[in-house]
Amino acid sequence: MFRKLVHFEKALQILQREFPIRPIDVEQVTLSEALGRILAHEVLSPENVPSFDRSTVDGYAVKAADTFGADENRPVTLTLKGYVAIGGLPHAIVRNGAVAEIVTGAPLPSGADAVVMVEYAVRRGNVISIHRPVSKGENIMKAGSDFQKGEKILRKGQVLGPREVGALAAIGLPKVSVFKKPKIAVLSTGEEIVEQGKPLPPGKVYDINTHTLSSAVQSFGGDPINLGVVPDDFGLLKAALDKALGLADVVITSGGVSVGPKDIVPRVLDTLGKPGVIVNGIAVKPGKPTTIAVVNKKLIFSLPGHPTSSLMMFYLLARPVLDQLTGKHEGAPQTLKAVAATRMFPARGRKTLTMVTIDHGKSGRLVASPVPLGLSGAISTLTKADGFVEIEEERQFVDVGEEVTVSLFRYKQGF
Amino acid sequence: MFRKLVHFEKALQILQREFPIRPIDVEQVTLSEALGRILAHEVLSPENVPSFDRSTVDGYAVKAADTFGADENRPVTLTLKGYVAIGGLPHAIVRNGAVAEIVTGAPLPSGADAVVMVEYAVRRGNVISIHRPVSKGENIMKAGSDFQKGEKILRKGQVLGPREVGALAAIGLPKVSVFKKPKIAVLSTGEEIVEQGKPLPPGKVYDINTHTLSSAVQSFGGDPINLGVVPDDFGLLKAALDKALGLADVVITSGGVSVGPKDIVPRVLDTLGKPGVIVNGIAVKPGKPTTIAVVNKKLIFSLPGHPTSSLMMFYLLARPVLDQLTGKHEGAPQTLKAVAATRMFPARGRKTLTMVTIDHGKSGRLVASPVPLGLSGAISTLTKADGFVEIEEERQFVDVGEEVTVSLFRYKQGF
Repeated sequence: MFRKLVHFEKALQILQREFPIRPIDVEQVTLSEALGRILAHEVLSPENVPSFDRSTVDGYAVKAADTFGADENRPVTLTLKGYVAIGGLPHAIVRNGAVAEIVTGAPLPSGADAVVMVEYAVRRGNVISIHRPVSKGENIMKAGSDFQKGEKILRKGQVLGPREVGALAAIGLPKVSVFKKPKIAVLSTGEEIVEQGKPLPPGKVYDINTHTLSSAVQSFGGDPINLGVVPDDFGLLKAALDKALGLADVVITSGGVSVGPKDIVPRVLDTLGKPGVIVNGIAVKPGKPTTIAVVNKKLIFSLPGHPTSSLMMFYLLARPVLDQLTGKHEGAPQTLKAVAATRMFPARGRKTLTMVTIDHGKSGRLVASPVPLGLSGAISTLTKADGFVEIEEERQFVDVGEEVTVSLFRYKQGF
Repeated sequence: MFRKLVHFEKALQILQREFPIRPIDVEQVTLSEALGRILAHEVLSPENVPSFDRSTVDGYAVKAADTFGADENRPVTLTLKGYVAIGGLPHAIVRNGAVAEIVTGAPLPSGADAVVMVEYAVRRGNVISIHRPVSKGENIMKAGSDFQKGEKILRKGQVLGPREVGALAAIGLPKVSVFKKPKIAVLSTGEEIVEQGKPLPPGKVYDINTHTLSSAVQSFGGDPINLGVVPDDFGLLKAALDKALGLADVVITSGGVSVGPKDIVPRVLDTLGKPGVIVNGIAVKPGKPTTIAVVNKKLIFSLPGHPTSSLMMFYLLARPVLDQLTGKHEGAPQTLKAVAATRMFPARGRKTLTMVTIDHGKSGRLVASPVPLGLSGAISTLTKADGFVEIEEERQFVDVGEEVTVSLFRYKQGF
């Protein structure tokens, strides 16, 4: 059999033309099953998160105006009028120079518009001496500051990592709709191939490819169906491929695509249905005999039998198709070098993790820009950041243009 | 409660001193369950792989000396004396100017020491005209050229990816010993925390941290046990922690470690067993109130309640411990820029994937060196390479020092 090799890009074009983009089914999973799955719909926040103004510190809820002029030596004295417990409605009302004791996370009582940290107040009975003024809104996380009601939280096609699972948890969702994993059947052909656990007769070798290809399918979000080894027999191979097409969305075979008398795979592929073989030989090394068929709107990749060739062709040719079938828009996380967009300061005496976004800078280098932090309790900050930079406490600051290492939360295309 | 923050590195030292390195249990899994697991023992090849000399092409098995002097116009003529089937013992014997037809992967017949590709031979009846000479060993994969008997194939602590699973398959192993996943119990504390699926009363928020932390544990190879939300009650929290310590190797709590009246976690930790709290407050931002306890040789991380703080502290503090408990020596793969160590040529007219190793060069840049390919069928080449470079067919070559993008098979420390 002689054949004309097609260029790799041409093979991709033929593949895209002949293999219809199929709607991917959706299923519901619990949050504990959600890690690594692909979100099937965009997610909006059904309510403000948090649903109420919260204190971000332990201390005293006050009217900010009541603390003006306070300093270390001349404190303002106010009267303690109640305690705001966490997890309930505040009964205290802050007015006429009153304050209410409050803990981190508790709802701000009526009348209060700021919280004085406990470190800057001294209590003697019901008299609270305030040693530092606060401005309106200080030490408060406003209702909706994490997510506004109706705000888009997550995008369709996003891979659910720990932070995205956290965002779903924040809005109270016990379950989430994700794309079903595409089923990919894998089989090896060849008289010389023996399954593991059996003795190896002379002239035979163990099956490698169903294991490498199944693992590769799994690692990129597919659901592999390992159909094992099929002999080089026209009838047996046709039966195995018919079965595989019934079980799976895509079938990957290895072996039997070269030019020897036993290389019957392309001929079998052409008997299974229309249009049959669409690519027979690609100008790529390794992987030249790679054959692609479409049968009744399902796809078959027939890769060479050499373990290296078949796995490399999986990465080059089958993986992008698998990514598309999974509905994924992102890959695996990593660490990157970038330059600081602004000065970044550590908290005094503390090793400081600064969340950043990463972008291409004008100089051709990547640029890391701190995410406006707001409040450290905000899960929304986490979902907006690309990663974080560690700043050691000994540093005065990281300067503009200085190189930093970013630990990425998510993979970004093109870096 | 006042406390002195310890520096982050000091906290790590205390942790390493107080938390004994525990032997990690081992379990057997099948190859289809092996992806992402950590190898518990080094693996040696029990036999040569392949166990016999194989042809790497379709053609004619010959004595190389019989082909000397052959060229396009004056072929050497030899006599066809048999056919070597794949998957069995060869019956043909090659001697006295005889050749045997042979297919890719079939065992070399006795007397032959090379294979002439079918493209360079013409058959008329039993007369084979050879139009190009071959040298001894040409187009043959020698016995043991993939793995030698007794050769070390995989290291203890290696993460099993598709290529490593392939190496195990090549030596016929149906099962493999891997480290058991460490069990990590996760719970949230706080009166204001509500589980998903329940209505959200005023002043309450949904539990985020057990979901982010369980997902993070899972994504780094641990087996999370989500114990949900525990109220800020001394007795209930003590009971929950006792239960968690019974179920898991490590416990991660969030909330209740600040300085408010409800922040009872450190006091509860000190009642569970010896030595109790070993770190109470770390000079890091976010995450200052983070508390670490060791109880009866088990470890408890008590992280702050803010979702961002708790997840960042997981990455910084708990993840390295988890990596150690999983037995892992490697992380996730990525793409890197490097410079070519040698000229790399594409195969003529074919987009070419060249396997490379990556190392630090003298110039401070990473250097990609092609792996001596030998034969593309060798799974051992795959396990030795760090990744591959794509060379387009239009290129004459990639020059020494030219920048290339390496798609990494595995993560390498320090890049």
